[in-house]
Amino acid sequence: MINVGIIGYGYWGPNLVRNFIENIDCRVVAVCDLSPERQALVRSRYHGVQVTADANELFENPQIDAIAIATPVSHHFSLAMRALKAGKHILVEKPLTSSTEEALRLIDEAERRKLVLMVDHTFVYTPAVRKIRGLVNESQLGSIYYYDSVRVNLGLFQEDVDVIWDLAVHDFSIMEFVLGRQPTAISATGLSHVDGRKEDVAYITAFFEERLIAHIHVNWLSPVKVRRTLIGGSRRMILYDDVEPSEKVKVYDRGIDVTQPMESDYQMMVSYRSGDIWVPALPNAEALKVEVADFVNSITTGARPIADGHAGMRVVQILEAATRSMQGRGRLIELGVRRAVA
Amino acid sequence: MINVGIIGYGYWGPNLVRNFIENIDCRVVAVCDLSPERQALVRSRYHGVQVTADANELFENPQIDAIAIATPVSHHFSLAMRALKAGKHILVEKPLTSSTEEALRLIDEAERRKLVLMVDHTFVYTPAVRKIRGLVNESQLGSIYYYDSVRVNLGLFQEDVDVIWDLAVHDFSIMEFVLGRQPTAISATGLSHVDGRKEDVAYITAFFEERLIAHIHVNWLSPVKVRRTLIGGSRRMILYDDVEPSEKVKVYDRGIDVTQPMESDYQMMVSYRSGDIWVPALPNAEALKVEVADFVNSITTGARPIADGHAGMRVVQILEAATRSMQGRGRLIELGVRRAVA
Amino acid sequence: MINVGIIGYGYWGPNLVRNFIENIDCRVVAVCDLSPERQALVRSRYHGVQVTADANELFENPQIDAIAIATPVSHHFSLAMRALKAGKHILVEKPLTSSTEEALRLIDEAERRKLVLMVDHTFVYTPAVRKIRGLVNESQLGSIYYYDSVRVNLGLFQEDVDVIWDLAVHDFSIMEFVLGRQPTAISATGLSHVDGRKEDVAYITAFFEERLIAHIHVNWLSPVKVRRTLIGGSRRMILYDDVEPSEKVKVYDRGIDVTQPMESDYQMMVSYRSGDIWVPALPNAEALKVEVADFVNSITTGARPIADGHAGMRVVQILEAATRSMQGRGRLIELGVRRAVA
Amino acid sequence: MINVGIIGYGYWGPNLVRNFIENIDCRVVAVCDLSPERQALVRSRYHGVQVTADANELFENPQIDAIAIATPVSHHFSLAMRALKAGKHILVEKPLTSSTEEALRLIDEAERRKLVLMVDHTFVYTPAVRKIRGLVNESQLGSIYYYDSVRVNLGLFQEDVDVIWDLAVHDFSIMEFVLGRQPTAISATGLSHVDGRKEDVAYITAFFEERLIAHIHVNWLSPVKVRRTLIGGSRRMILYDDVEPSEKVKVYDRGIDVTQPMESDYQMMVSYRSGDIWVPALPNAEALKVEVADFVNSITTGARPIADGHAGMRVVQILEAATRSMQGRGRLIELGVRRAVA
Repeated sequence: MINVGIIGYGYWGPNLVRNFIENIDCRVVAVCDLSPERQALVRSRYHGVQVTADANELFENPQIDAIAIATPVSHHFSLAMRALKAGKHILVEKPLTSSTEEALRLIDEAERRKLVLMVDHTFVYTPAVRKIRGLVNESQLGSIYYYDSVRVNLGLFQEDVDVIWDLAVHDFSIMEFVLGRQPTAISATGLSHVDGRKEDVAYITAFFEERLIAHIHVNWLSPVKVRRTLIGGSRRMILYDDVEPSEKVKVYDRGIDVTQPMESDYQMMVSYRSGDIWVPALPNAEALKVEVADFVNSITTGARPIADGHAGMRVVQILEAATRSMQGRGRLIELGVRRAVA
Repeated sequence: MINVGIIGYGYWGPNLVRNFIENIDCRVVAVCDLSPERQALVRSRYHGVQVTADANELFENPQIDAIAIATPVSHHFSLAMRALKAGKHILVEKPLTSSTEEALRLIDEAERRKLVLMVDHTFVYTPAVRKIRGLVNESQLGSIYYYDSVRVNLGLFQEDVDVIWDLAVHDFSIMEFVLGRQPTAISATGLSHVDGRKEDVAYITAFFEERLIAHIHVNWLSPVKVRRTLIGGSRRMILYDDVEPSEKVKVYDRGIDVTQPMESDYQMMVSYRSGDIWVPALPNAEALKVEVADFVNSITTGARPIADGHAGMRVVQILEAATRSMQGRGRLIELGVRRAVA
Repeated sequence: MINVGIIGYGYWGPNLVRNFIENIDCRVVAVCDLSPERQALVRSRYHGVQVTADANELFENPQIDAIAIATPVSHHFSLAMRALKAGKHILVEKPLTSSTEEALRLIDEAERRKLVLMVDHTFVYTPAVRKIRGLVNESQLGSIYYYDSVRVNLGLFQEDVDVIWDLAVHDFSIMEFVLGRQPTAISATGLSHVDGRKEDVAYITAFFEERLIAHIHVNWLSPVKVRRTLIGGSRRMILYDDVEPSEKVKVYDRGIDVTQPMESDYQMMVSYRSGDIWVPALPNAEALKVEVADFVNSITTGARPIADGHAGMRVVQILEAATRSMQGRGRLIELGVRRAVA
Repeated sequence: MINVGIIGYGYWGPNLVRNFIENIDCRVVAVCDLSPERQALVRSRYHGVQVTADANELFENPQIDAIAIATPVSHHFSLAMRALKAGKHILVEKPLTSSTEEALRLIDEAERRKLVLMVDHTFVYTPAVRKIRGLVNESQLGSIYYYDSVRVNLGLFQEDVDVIWDLAVHDFSIMEFVLGRQPTAISATGLSHVDGRKEDVAYITAFFEERLIAHIHVNWLSPVKVRRTLIGGSRRMILYDDVEPSEKVKVYDRGIDVTQPMESDYQMMVSYRSGDIWVPALPNAEALKVEVADFVNSITTGARPIADGHAGMRVVQILEAATRSMQGRGRLIELGVRRAVA
C-alpha cells in the first residue's frame, strides 16, 4: 500500500486525488491547498483525508511515501525538491519545471536518492497516443516526413506562462513519445494581444537531424476548438483528432512514390498513392488511471516510468527554446544535448 | 468587343478560354500551347479559334487586344513583357512573376503604355472572400488579432517552384485583399522530402506594424484536404472553410473582453464571450467569370482592376521573402516598402 | 427543505441523487435499490443517507416529502401509486407508465390528493429544446410542415420494452413540448432481430389535424450514433443535432415560396429561398438540475411542472399506439383524446 | 459502331449525349427536344448532329440503332414502345414507366423483338454502390438486418410525380441491386404542403420474407442535403454517405453477438462488438460512362444489362405500392410476384 499526499486541489488536483483513491494499491493520506474553499471541498468529498494549507505537513509526514504536485508551474521546482529531500517519490504536473536547469537538478536529486521522479504527461497514457506510437514503432508509417499539430480554442489565459507552456507542452510530450527522437533546433513566432500578458498565439517549428520537420500551432483566441495532429510518413499517414468522440485515429494508406527514372536524370519522378483508410478501435481507458498505475509500478518495482524526469526535462528544454525563439521573432535556437550529471 | 488570345492550355488555361468565350464582350481569337495534344483539344472544342505553338503569332496579331498568360511561372515575365511591348493588355496567372524586380518592371511598362496589367488572383473574386473583406471593412471584427490559414492536400508536386509559390500564393493574395495592409517581416520554415525537388511543406509567419500576426501552413503531402482560414478579431471571429460546400463563412460572436481593474493593477482582467454564430448566405458566382468581367471593365473604362500589378507585386515580394527565410530556417526577413518607379 | 427519497440506483438514479443533493432546497434522506452492490456504492459515496432494499421504508417514512422513481418501467405504476397513497410527491422516470390507463389513474390519484406528479422528460429541460420551443412559439418558423427525428446507436437492448419505449419516448416528449399539439393517428413499422426480444428497429409516423407530419426513427443496431431532428416550417427550418458539442441548434432561413399565378391556374408556383443560417448561443445548464428545481418549485408553490402527469400520459398514449401499429405492420391507429376524469 | 438518338435534352439528356459521344463505339446521330432553346443549345455544342422536335424522325431513321429516352416519366411508355416497334434498342430514364403494367408490356415487346431494354438506374453503376454490393455478396456483412436510407434536400418540386417517384426511385434501385431480393409488402406515409401538388415528404417501409426491414426517407423540403444509407448486418455494418467527397463507404466491424445461455433460458444474451472501421478506396469512374458501356455491350453481345427491364419493372412495382400505401396512410400493400409473360 502506497500512501500518497497531493499538493494543489485546483483544476487538475481533483482528478489526481480521485484516481489515487480508485487505485487499490494507494491510499490518499493528505491533501494540501492554500484556499479554504478548496480545502472545504476536499473535506466534504473525502472523509478521513488530512487537509492542510502547509505543504510541510506532507513532507514531514513519515507515513507518506509519494507526493503529487499540481500547483502553478513556478512552484514545481521548490516543492518537488523539498519532497525529494524528504525522501518522497514524486509525480509533478506538466511542465516539469520552469527551466531545464531546474529539471536537471530534480533528476540528479531523484537518481541519487533512488526515488521515482515522474512528470504528468497525461496524453502519453491515452489509448490514441499509445496506438500511434505502436504504429510508428512497427514502421507502419515508413520514414516520418512531418509531425504537425494544432491545439487551439477560446481558452483560459494563464497569468504566469505563455500559450506555449500551457498548450504546446502537450504536443511536445506526445511528439517525443511517438517519434522517439529529439529536435535539434527550434524556430518560433507568436504574439500577445493583451497588455501585460504573455503571448496568446504561437507557432513553433522543430527541426531534426533526419529529413523530418515538426510544427505546433497553439492559440487561446480561437473561436473553435481544434485538437488535430497530422503525421506524414513515406508509407502511411495518420490523422489524430482528439475532439472526435469515436474515430480519434485514422490511418491513411496514402502518400507519394518516388522513383528514379532509368536514364541518368537528376530529377525524381513523383506519383501518388490513394488507398484505404483504417480507423482502429481503441480501448476505453482513462489515461490518468493508467498513469497512476505506472507511477505505482515504478515505486514498487523500480521500473522506469514512461514519463520520467528525463522526458519532462526534454520537453522543458524545447519550451524554453521556443519561448526564446519567439521573443527573437523566429530566431533559430539550437538545442544542445543536455544530460543530467550525477 | 475585346479580342483575346490565351497562352497556355494546360491545367488552368481551359478555364480562362471558357470564361472569355462566355463573356459577351470578348471574343477568343487565338490559343497558343506547345503541346500538339493540347492544341488538338482546343481545335476539337472550339471551331474558328486560331491554334498555334508560337506565341509571337499572338503578339504580332493586330486584331488581338488582350492576352491571358497561363504558363509555368518561369515564363510569365518574358511573355508578359513581350505582350506589353506589343501593346496588349495582359492578365497573368498567379504568381505574377518569379521576382519582385520582374513585377516592378512589368508595372512600369504597363503604366507607361497605359495598358491593363492584371494578375489572376482568382480567390479575391469569390463570394466568400468578398464577404469576408466586407465584414472586415465594416469593422464587424474589430481590431484584427490574427490571420491563420491552412492549405494542405496530397498535391501535385511542382517542378519549378516550392509549395509556397504554388499554394501560399493564394493565401497571401486573399490576406492582402481582406486585411488591406502589408506585412513588415517574414519568418518561414519548411522542408523537402524528395531529392532534387523543392520544399513540399512550409510554415510562414508574417509580422505587421499593428498587433497582428499571420501564419500560413502549406503542404503537398497531407492525406486530407484542408482549406481553412481563421481570422480573429477583438469583436468577432471568422472561420472560412473553402472545402465546405454550403457553409463556407462562419462569423462567431466570440472573443475576450479585457478590462482594466479599478485599482491600479498592472494586470488586465480577461473574460470570455461566447455568443451566436452566423453563416451568411453567399451568391452562386463563378469567381473567374467575375474576374474576367473586371479585366474587361478595366480595359474599356480605364478603371484599376482589383488584382492589379501592384497587388501581384506585393504578393511576389512576400513569396520571395518567405522562400529566403525558409532557406535560412526561420531567419527574419524585413520587407522594405518597394514601389514601382516610372 | 424538502426531504427526498430515491427508488432505483441503477443507470439514471445516481444522476437524480446527485442533483437532489446539489439542490439547496432538498435533502436526500433515503435511497432504495435491490442490489447489494448498488447499495454499497451509495454508502461509499454519501454518508448519512439511509440505504435500503425495501421501498416501503421510504413510503412509511413520515420525514420524506417526495419520492423519485428510477426503476424499470414495469414497476413505475405500482411504486408511484403506493407513493401517492402514502402522501408523497413523485417524480417518475420516463416513460411514466406502461399504459395510458395506468397514467390516468396516477393523474387522478395525484390530483385528488393535491400532490405533484411529474415525469422525468429530461430533454424538455435542456437549453436546446427550450430554445426551439421558444422559436416555434414566436412563430419564427411559420407554419410547421414536418418534425423528423433520428435517434440511433449501438445501444443497450432493453429486456422489458421495445426500442420505441426506450428511445422514441424522448422524441415524443420533445415533440409535444415543442409543437404544443397532439397527433391524431399513428402508423409504425419495426422489426426484432433477436429471438425472444422485442423490436430493435422502428419507424413511427404521426399524423396531425394540421398539414403537419412527424416521423421518428429509432434503432439499437446502428454502427453510428445519430441524434438529429429536422423541423421544417413555412418561414424557417431548424436542425437540432444533439451530438454536436457546441452548435446544437441551427436555424435556416430557407424554404419555399408558394405563389398563386395571376391567371386562373390551378397550379401553384413554387420557388426557393436559401438565406442565412443562425446558430444561437445556448446557456450551459444541466437539464436535470433545472428539472429538479421545477419539481421543487411545484411542490412549494403549487405550480404545475412543465412535465406533468398529463404530458407523461400523452406520450404513453403515443407509445402504446406506436407499438400496436408496429405489430400490425403500419396499421393506422387513431388517437382518441383521452382525459383524466376525477 | 452503334448509331444513337436521344429524346429529351433537358436536365439529364445533356449528360447522356456527352457520354454517348465520348464512347468510342457510339455515334450520336440525332437529338430530339420540343424546346427551340434546347435545340439551339445542341446545335451550338455539337456540329453534325441532327436536331429535331419530332421523335418520329428518330424512329423512322434506319441509321439509328438505339434510342435513349430522357423525358418526363409520363412519356416514357409511349416513346419507348414506339422505339421498340421501330426496332430500336432503348435506354429509358428512371423510373422506367408510370405503372407496372406498362413496364411489363415493354419487357414483352423487347423480348419478342430481341431488343435491349435498359433503364437508367445510374447509381448501380457508381463505384460506391458496386463496392457495397460486392461486400454484401461476399457475406462480409453476414445476414442483413436492415437497409435505411435518407435522401432529402431543398429540391425542385416535380409537377407530375410525387417525391417518392422522384427521389426514392434511386434508393429502391440501389437497394434491389445491393440486396438482390425483393420486398414482399410496403407501408408508406407522406404529406403534401402545397395545394394542387403531390406529396413532398414521404417515409416508406419495405418488408421482406427474411428478418429484414428497409426504410426510405425522402423530402423536397429539407434545409440540408442528406444522402445517407445505413446497412446493418449480423457481422458488419455499412454507412454510405454520398455527400462525402472522399469517404463515401465506411465499413464498421460493429454489431451484436447473440448467445444462447447454457441453461434452457428462452432469453438470448446480447452483447456488443465495437471494432475497427475500414474505408475502402474507390476508383474514380463516372457512373454514366460505365452505364453507357453496359448498354453498348448488351447490344453487341446480347448480354443482359445490369439494369434491365425487369429491374426497372421491379422498382416501378415498389413505387406504385408506396404511393398507394401513402394515400392510405400506411396501409399495407402486398407485392405479388409479377412476371412478364411472353
